This record gives sequence, structure tokens and C-alpha cells, in this order.
Amino acid sequence: MTDTLIDRRDLDFLLYDVMDTAALSSRERFQDHSRETFDAVIETADRMAREKFAPHNSLADKQEPSFVNGEVEMLPEVKEAFHAYAEAGFLAGRYDHDLGGMQLPESVIAACNGFFTAANPGTAGYPFLTTAAANLIRVFGSEEQQAKYLPPMLDGRYSGTMALTEPHAGSSLSDIRTSASPTDDGHYLIKGAKIYISGGEQSITENIVHLVLAKIKGAPPGVKGISLFIVPKFLTDADGQVTGRNGVALAGLIHKLGYRGTTSTALSFGDDAPCHGYLVGEPHQGLKYMFQMMNEARLGVGFGAAVIGYRGYLHSLEYARDRLQGRKPSESDPTSPPVPIIEHADVRRMLLAQKAYCEGGLALCLYGARLVDDQHTHPDADVREQSGKLLDLLTPIMKAWPSEYGPKANDLAIQVYGGAGYTREYPVEQCWRDNRLNPIHEGTNGIQALDLLGRKVWQDKSYGLQLLMKRMQADLEASTTARCQQWALSLSETLQRAVKVTQELGAALMKESPDGVLANASCYLHLFGHIAVAWMWLRQANVAEFKLASGGLSEQERHFLEGKLQAAQYFFHWELPTVAQDIVLLQNRDDTCLAMKPEWF
Amino acid sequence: MTDTLIDRRDLDFLLYDVMDTAALSSRERFQDHSRETFDAVIETADRMAREKFAPHNSLADKQEPSFVNGEVEMLPEVKEAFHAYAEAGFLAGRYDHDLGGMQLPESVIAACNGFFTAANPGTAGYPFLTTAAANLIRVFGSEEQQAKYLPPMLDGRYSGTMALTEPHAGSSLSDIRTSASPTDDGHYLIKGAKIYISGGEQSITENIVHLVLAKIKGAPPGVKGISLFIVPKFLTDADGQVTGRNGVALAGLIHKLGYRGTTSTALSFGDDAPCHGYLVGEPHQGLKYMFQMMNEARLGVGFGAAVIGYRGYLHSLEYARDRLQGRKPSESDPTSPPVPIIEHADVRRMLLAQKAYCEGGLALCLYGARLVDDQHTHPDADVREQSGKLLDLLTPIMKAWPSEYGPKANDLAIQVYGGAGYTREYPVEQCWRDNRLNPIHEGTNGIQALDLLGRKVWQDKSYGLQLLMKRMQADLEASTTARCQQWALSLSETLQRAVKVTQELGAALMKESPDGVLANASCYLHLFGHIAVAWMWLRQANVAEFKLASGGLSEQERHFLEGKLQAAQYFFHWELPTVAQDIVLLQNRDDTCLAMKPEWF
Repeated sequence: MTDTLIDRRDLDFLLYDVMDTAALSSRERFQDHSRETFDAVIETADRMAREKFAPHNSLADKQEPSFVNGEVEMLPEVKEAFHAYAEAGFLAGRYDHDLGGMQLPESVIAACNGFFTAANPGTAGYPFLTTAAANLIRVFGSEEQQAKYLPPMLDGRYSGTMALTEPHAGSSLSDIRTSASPTDDGHYLIKGAKIYISGGEQSITENIVHLVLAKIKGAPPGVKGISLFIVPKFLTDADGQVTGRNGVALAGLIHKLGYRGTTSTALSFGDDAPCHGYLVGEPHQGLKYMFQMMNEARLGVGFGAAVIGYRGYLHSLEYARDRLQGRKPSESDPTSPPVPIIEHADVRRMLLAQKAYCEGGLALCLYGARLVDDQHTHPDADVREQSGKLLDLLTPIMKAWPSEYGPKANDLAIQVYGGAGYTREYPVEQCWRDNRLNPIHEGTNGIQALDLLGRKVWQDKSYGLQLLMKRMQADLEASTTARCQQWALSLSETLQRAVKVTQELGAALMKESPDGVLANASCYLHLFGHIAVAWMWLRQANVAEFKLASGGLSEQERHFLEGKLQAAQYFFHWELPTVAQDIVLLQNRDDTCLAMKPEWF
Repeated sequence: MTDTLIDRRDLDFLLYDVMDTAALSSRERFQDHSRETFDAVIETADRMAREKFAPHNSLADKQEPSFVNGEVEMLPEVKEAFHAYAEAGFLAGRYDHDLGGMQLPESVIAACNGFFTAANPGTAGYPFLTTAAANLIRVFGSEEQQAKYLPPMLDGRYSGTMALTEPHAGSSLSDIRTSASPTDDGHYLIKGAKIYISGGEQSITENIVHLVLAKIKGAPPGVKGISLFIVPKFLTDADGQVTGRNGVALAGLIHKLGYRGTTSTALSFGDDAPCHGYLVGEPHQGLKYMFQMMNEARLGVGFGAAVIGYRGYLHSLEYARDRLQGRKPSESDPTSPPVPIIEHADVRRMLLAQKAYCEGGLALCLYGARLVDDQHTHPDADVREQSGKLLDLLTPIMKAWPSEYGPKANDLAIQVYGGAGYTREYPVEQCWRDNRLNPIHEGTNGIQALDLLGRKVWQDKSYGLQLLMKRMQADLEASTTARCQQWALSLSETLQRAVKVTQELGAALMKESPDGVLANASCYLHLFGHIAVAWMWLRQANVAEFKLASGGLSEQERHFLEGKLQAAQYFFHWELPTVAQDIVLLQNRDDTCLAMKPEWF
């Protein structure tokens, strides 16, 4: 198995050649940075991921956390890795220098986190959850809450969780029942149960800060009555000294198919002892707060799916180069030596598909991270606003597309290995199991499809969609070589058809029940996902052609760029045309699925 | 989780309404049988699978066999299930009454075995391997070998294995190195190593009969120098008394992603003690013998993949009916009660896709089993010959299509369950892991694609293909209702395009290197697989329409038939059109994958 987590040449190509990340250092917020500092932090992430995260990835899968005498037992390596991550400053990587942060762009932090997920998604879960929870407190918490919780969360003494899901309600947050009763001194008593809470208990940090969705007694029904609370595992005083155990308890560990290193917990609140919760922001605004963070959480899921796919790809690529087996169909001499299986056309197909999926998915997510940067730091206010709109529109795609195609890549990686891939002696089966979570959590891909077609596309009179088309148009026009022009034409035609079907669906939504119009939302998500990734491949191909034409390249660099062009061709020849079927089903308003009655099954 | 292994109404529909299996009882070989005896044996299989196989399916996955003090420790339930299967006569189900068999048609035995695999694929592996090995001895073994090995293999005292694969050679059997040196008394000494040998060691039977491919010293190179040997674990005398341990030893157990109940072993031959092997048939004919059995083994893989898919489908269907969550998009009142998730269009899509894949795959494999029956027992010699040709042609499709789409169904089953599906508390993740083996073993699907496009299509001047078209034509003409006519038209057009591209590829094979022509064989396999399954759905739809028109049906029966028609519509609207892309790639002789140089990755 290979040590390489993400190909550094590829990452540099995406970050610097395609997205010009180095230019971010000219922005005020990043003025202390340069390509050199970005590279240094990426190098640190790569090395730390290889040294502290990767070595126990398989072991943490085999010896998953267990519940012993009221405590969670887990590998000591997980704690070591968490604290190494914290000590290197990654928990606070995005934050202001004033908060002890590195004030790094999201593009760079996302790339760094890619290495940790590629190395060990289970262990990487703990710091990622902590930064997500800290970010909520930073944006919506009171000054007092920030002062109390942010420093220990950013230096790794406390971890964080997001406690949304309840057993009876699943994705349907409007139905949550966890209640919050006001006390006389301004805080709340929380009562209820949560499930699938990642990192809800562990033996890594001295305290855990749960961010809990609950309903204040008398709140309006549905999503408009949900509030957000800080619920620490241990209560502390103003000096941070522990004053007692809070009434949040581990009700059970959930045993998962993959991602086993991250505990998944059932938690009970206020069952055996009073559970104290502290309101974040205003009452009844909890879901809004949570969703303002959700873009980044969903982008994180897509990112993770892409890099787990990527890791499997690199493993199978190495195996295919090393493994000698069989001969080409044209070879009739059975005494001729067997060839590396990368020589077989079907193995190349499986490798090239993986490359197209994973590098394309990675490009899409890095583009999303750049939108986050531009939303917050672009010098032009219009661009900041536009970046936010684009991010809103693309979020369901950036969550769902890599989480469909990353696992597909892992499936192909197993197939490249053949029988060996089916054994637990080789690493690709774990990648496949780990990655299977990504189409499910942070909103299933079915929910992403409804979010895209039922909401995001129409927001602000489809302003986001218009912006997206404008940005794509610029890259279509920049496609000047013969093959890129041809691919640009395919993309342009597909985009026109997609826009037409969007208009038809929009018109239908004005006069018909949304049940029928949204029934095939998953086709729409697939259609727009493929368009977005085709665009990412066109951008990469344009850069590759430009660099190849400019000459003076090493042989290795030419090979790298030719590989990029061949993967782009794969996407345009083998993948993009598959959306024809989505367009037909959407145009016909095919009702096969909707009309299937439950009693007919 | 549901107790239903395979829906009996569905199985009856396929066996009796679509394929008229009852008519087999008019054939001489099956003259003691009737629909009643077929039903009785199916009922026995269903019950025994539920009672003896299903209960330890999850446990055998969690407590996989282990290697302790030179023995394999496994659950005692596996042994009990094996012997129950043997005692009920299933090991000898296909065989002559004279051999203690039930003289049952393959169609019925295949259906029975479907229940065992659906209940517990790991435990079902042992009897299936034993019947496969026994079948080889029955057809190619000497009278003495038959007398010595068949009775204990058919009554469950001995089990069997197929020992083909070697560590360095994988699928490339021409490169095997296991050697056979003749002794003075007419038998051979075997030396070498095999890997991934299912059931190669266990604690179920008193002896194990390995069927081993090896090369006799001085044999021609490649596949023409491979011979087949019986290598028993324990040597016995003419009376069946054990005379000693043979020199075949367990070198290690392989730990798999799924199918954990079936031991997968590395075996060494002749390492520590002489290993005695007994030649089956003629020298150097081993691969030919093995491949005469391969059609049935590959059909068995497809069958297993379809029913594991089916099992996951039934689980997720039950869950979708029970689980209350969310509301329809048109419901704006958050206080309205949540609906069963089967009400959500996207959940129906995932259920209907599973139904289309699994019932379609099951129909295809039952059709294959019928071809086996017709090949051996049809009264018309021409039909017997034709059935064999069709079976040859369809074997790669019947192996590969269900083993692609059965796992896809299991993936959708997990998604229907959402977070619950990702936990090991629910059964669908095991289905998904178990089923992942099927695209790999008995020839990877990439090898099936080469077998189809490189060999099977052209055999006997494409006689098999002509026969297939003729049979399809009959069903196209029998499609007389409005919707069936429309589907028949789709299928007919697709078939014509497929034939045209076949002719083009055939012409290319005459003048060009096969490396280029066969490069996209996987597209061809997908194209023909979808055509074959569309045909199976058209046949089912025609029967459903006929029965619905004939009236006098119970409400339940009408629902069942409407469900069949809706699943057929799903296949024709959502699945068959996806082959357009395969046809384009094949017609264009797209060389994207073949032209990708290893150094460009």
C-alpha cells in the first residue's frame, strides 16, 4: 500500500495553477501569508497525517471504541493524533491571530484537512467536529460563551459535537422533541435523547461541548421553534474549573459499518441528573444558526468523500503497477511473461474512472473552499456577495456528488485488486466502508436533491444559477485548443438543455403540487453535479493545455499534464453523456416512481 | 427485519406463470414430479433456510471462523445447517434416483438454493461447493472415483472444493505452477500452493475432496497443459476407511470483507508430507473439464448476487413501510403527522430500482437454469443443442449482470435505511458486504466481458446470438397491449443497434489487433446485460397484462401484477436508455482508456 495520501503535484496544480490560491496572500486578511507559508502548512499536514494519523487507521477500524465501566475505551493513538493536530495549530488554523489562530484561507485549511481524512477519517472526525462546533460559538455565541469555550476548544482541551438527530425523527428536524425549560437564572434544563452523535463520548479531551438543538417549552411548532444550546459534559466556573458533571450521559455506542474510529453515540439529556444548557443567540433561531454553518459542514463531507476515494485510487494504482498477471488479448504465447495489470484496458478504465471522479471531486470541493474565502475576504463587495450565493447553490452538489462518486471510486479500487481487494489484508475495503457514510450524513443525498431543486435553484430569482452560468461561460470561452473546444461544446450544449429543463420545472412549480415536480429531484442533482464536475475538468484541461504549449517542461510534468487531459477526456466521453437520461426523465416528468403505490411492492 | 427470504408469489410467478416450469414434469426424467412435488421441495427449502440458515447469518459474520491449534473453529450452527441440507436430500437433489437423488430440474434446485443464499450466503457456500465438486467427479471421474467419492459427498460426510487460483497468477490460470509428478502406481504427487480456496478447511465434514488444477511435469505451456486432480484431505481405502492424512495443509485463513461464514483458505500441497492426487479424466484436459462446469458455477454466482440483492430489498421495503419520518413537499403544516418513508418519491425510486434489479436478475438466472434443464432433458434434440448454445452465450451476462446490480440494490437498501442502514444493528450492511464478492469470484466481471465479446458472441458463427434474437423476437411479437408494445419497441430498437455494433466489432476483429477491439468490452457486457434483463421484464409484463385482462383476481393479486408492470416500466424508462452511452463508445471505438499511458497516471 502506498504512503501517498494526496498527490502533491495534483494538489499544487489545483490550488495554484487552476485556482491561483497564492494570490489570496494579497488580501488584507492573509497579508502575512505567501505561497511559501501555504506550502509549509500543507507540508506539515501531509507529514503529520502520515506520521500520526495513517499508522493506526486500520487498527482503529479493527479495535473500535468500546464502552467499559461507563467510559469509552479507545486506542491511545487517537488522543495523541488529536493533540498533535491541536498543537500544530490546525484547530485554530482559520482563526484570527488574536485568537491564537493562523488566519489561513479556507482553501489551504481544507487542503490540509484532506490529508488527515485521507490518512484516517475516523480519527480526523474529532478535530473536525471540534472546529465546526467552535465556529458556531464564535459566530453566534455571546462574548461570555466565546471567552469560556473558545480557548479550550481551539487548543484541544475541549472537543465539540453537533447534536441534532433524534431517534424518532431522523432527518426531519422539525419533529425533534428534546425540550428546554428555562430556569430562574437564565439558563435552561435540557431533557431528551439524541442519536448518531459523532464524538458524543470519547477519552481524548477533558471536556466535551455539545451543541444541542432543542425546543423551548411553548415554542412554535416545526423548524421555527428550534433553539440552539451549549451543553457541556462537565460544568465549569468562570475560571474554567470543573464544578461538576452535567446530566448528559452516554446511552450507548453505535456500531457502524465504517468510520469506526469516530464514536457514534446515543446520548440522553436530563435522565438521571439535571442537564444544564446555555442558549446560543436568540430563542427559536437555532436551525438558522445551524444551517449557516451547514454549508461548510456539507462541503466538508464532500471533501472527505473525495479524498477517501482518492486514497483508494492511489492504493489501486500502485497495486496495478506492481501486480503481474495475464497478457494482452493479442499475445498468444503462453510462455511470454505476464504483464503488470495496468496494461489491461479494463484495469486502465477502472483507474481512469477513479482519477476522473476523485480529482474532479477534489477540484469541486477546493472550488467551494475558495468560494468561502471569497465570500469573506474578497476585496470587492459584489464578489463577496456573489460568492456566497454560488456557495449556497453549489453546496448540495458539493456534498452529494463526491459522496456518490467517491464510493464508486472505492468500489472500482476493490475490483482492480480482485480477490485481494475483498480481503481485510488490503486497505481498499476499509476505504469503501468508511466512505459509505458520506451519502447519508449531514443530510442524505435525497435531501440534498430536494434542497437543490426545491430551494437553492430558485433563491433570489435564480441569481445563483445565473452567476454559475456566467462563470462557466468564461471558461467555455477560454477553451481554445481543439480538444478543449470540443469538450466546451459538449458542456455548453448540456448546460443549455439543463437550463431549459430548469425553466420548465420552475414553471411547473408555479402551477402544480411540488410533490410531482420534485419527484425526480435526484436526477436533477445528478445532472447538475455532472455539469459542475465537467466544468472543473474543463478548467483543469485548459490549464494543462496552456502549460504543455508553453514548453520547457520536464518529462514527468508532461506526463502529469497529459494524464489530466486524458482524465478530462474520460469525463467528457464516458461520464457527461450519461446525463442525457436525466434530462429525458425530467423533461418527460416521468412519474414511474411517484406513481408506484406502496401496496404494489 | 423481515423473515421473508424470497417473495413466494414472485417466485411462483417467475417459475410457473412466466417459465411454465410445471410443464417439465411431462419430460421423462421428471415424470415422477409435478407442480405439487416442486412446490413441496421449495417449501422445504424455504422453511429450512429460515429455521437452520437465517438465524446464525449475522453471528457467523461477527464470529468468523478462526484457526486454533491447527483446526478451524466455527459456529456449530454451520455444521447443523449443512447436515440438515444434506439430510433433506438437497446435495443430491439434481441426481438420479439411483444415486439417491431426487431427479429434480435445475430450475427447481436453483430456486431452492436461492432461499439458502438469501438466508445465509456464508453457510450456503459449503453445500454449494460440494455439489459443484461432486458434479465434476460425476461427469469426468472414473467409475472407481465415482464409487469412492460420490456417495459420501452426496450424503454430506465429505465436502468438496475447487482449487484453481494461485497466489502469483490470480485469474490467469495458464500461469499456475502447482505440479503433479507421476508415481509408479498410477497416481501423482502434488506440489504447490493455492489461495482463496473457499471451504478449503472447516470443521463440518469428516473429509474434504479438493479438486485441484495442476500441471503434470513436461506438460505443454499455458492452459493446454493443465490437468485436474482429486486431492482428499484424508486418504481412504476401498472401504472408505481412513488410512492417513494427505499432505494438503491449511497455510492460513483469509479474512474477508464479507461472506465471512465461508472459510477462505490458503492451502499448501506437498510441503510437509507427500500429497497424493488422482487424475480426473485425461491428462491436460483439466481446464476443459473445469469449464464445462463453469457455466453452472457462474450462473450460481449470478443467482446468489440476485438473491442477496433481493434480501436487502425486502428488508428495506419493510423498513420503509414502518418508519415514520418527514412529510410530502406539499404538506406545509409541521404539526401534521409524519408519513411512512415509502410515501417519499425518492424512497420509492430506491425501492423500485431494487425491485427492478433483483426480480429482473432473478428472472434472468431462472431462465438460465431452465436452459440447463432444456439442454439436458428437452425432448427435441435441436432444442437441447440450442439451449446449450444459448447458455454458453448468456453465461457471462448471467454471472456479471446480477453481480453488478445486486450490490447496487444493496447500496440502495442502505440508503433507504439512512443512518440506521450504516449501523451493524440492521441487516443491510452485511448484505452489501457479502454481495461485493460476486463481481470478483468465478472470473471477475472484466473477464466475463472479454469472454462475451472476445469469444462467446462469435462461437459457431454467432449462432447463439441468432438464437437469442429469435427468442426475443417471439416475445416482442407477443407484446400486444399499449404499454408492452411501447416497451417492445424500445427493446427492438436497442437490439438492432446492438446487433449493428456487434457486426462492426466483428469486422474489426478480422483486421485489427484484438487489444483495441476488446478494450471497451465492459460496455458491451453492460449493453447486452441490460438487453437481456429488459427482455426478462418484457416477458413478465406480458404475463402480467394477460392475467390482469383475464379478470377474476383478488385485490392482492392485482396489486402484485401492477407492481410487476410498474417495475417493468422503471426498467424501460430509467434503465434501458442508459445503454445509449455504451453503444456510442463502442461505435466510436473510444480509445480513452486504452490510450491512457501508465506513466500518465
